[in-house]
Amino acid sequence: MGAVGKSRPDEAAIRALIENWARAVRAKNFDGILAKHSNDILMFDVPPPLQSQGIDAYKKTWDLFFSSSPNPVIFDIARMDISAGEEVAFVTALMRCAVREENGSQSDLEFRLTIGLCKISDQWTVTHEHHSIPAG
Amino acid sequence: MGAVGKSRPDEAAIRALIENWARAVRAKNFDGILAKHSNDILMFDVPPPLQSQGIDAYKKTWDLFFSSSPNPVIFDIARMDISAGEEVAFVTALMRCAVREENGSQSDLEFRLTIGLCKISDQWTVTHEHHSIPAG
Repeated sequence: MGAVGKSRPDEAAIRALIENWARAVRAKNFDGILAKHSNDILMFDVPPPLQSQGIDAYKKTWDLFFSSSPNPVIFDIARMDISAGEEVAFVTALMRCAVREENGSQSDLEFRLTIGLCKISDQWTVTHEHHSIPAG
Repeated sequence: MGAVGKSRPDEAAIRALIENWARAVRAKNFDGILAKHSNDILMFDVPPPLQSQGIDAYKKTWDLFFSSSPNPVIFDIARMDISAGEEVAFVTALMRCAVREENGSQSDLEFRLTIGLCKISDQWTVTHEHHSIPAG
């Protein structure tokens, strides 16, 4: 994976965008979480539903996540690879978060994340996220 | 989502690539399944493991899928959106397959699919797939 062609500046911009977004998640900062996202974002999240389309539905997936997160929120990038062209890019990542159990204990959770981005009005914009854990 | 900028020919090429790949899955045709895939493909599949890296590990995920599939195999694209630049593209899809249960019955399964592609030696090449169902 990694950069494609002459895309190093785009790769650096995308890396910074994703790291800032993950930092905003850890801070429960909704303005930061939504700052670089398309109004039409298509979200495939870990819990149901099958899909969430649009920024309002996307924001609700974070309400749900925070409702089951310990404090402080854990949302760490363990590995990230960026494939960036000049207009379209995608990012693959292995992530770690934590979930608060009903008995008050905390479970660590490894998950997979794919992010799709398009350059819109000269700004990299997140148009797709796919978060998941293996089934079964 | 949809095409970006002047990418219509790329979008058409990618649509054909994905449709041919899905047809190869339905036919259990491994040459067709692997034909447009990178040796370094990173696969996030529905069942464990968390990730499968490289074409040999990718091929094994299909052995596992076919071992639990009914005949004929169901692997249908319900909706597909393509974001294609000139060098990098990603595809989001809602998919349907079926799983054979232990009692011999068959369960339909809706799942989400994200595919990442890079143009390598002027050929669109799949470098990433992320298949999942919602957890819980």
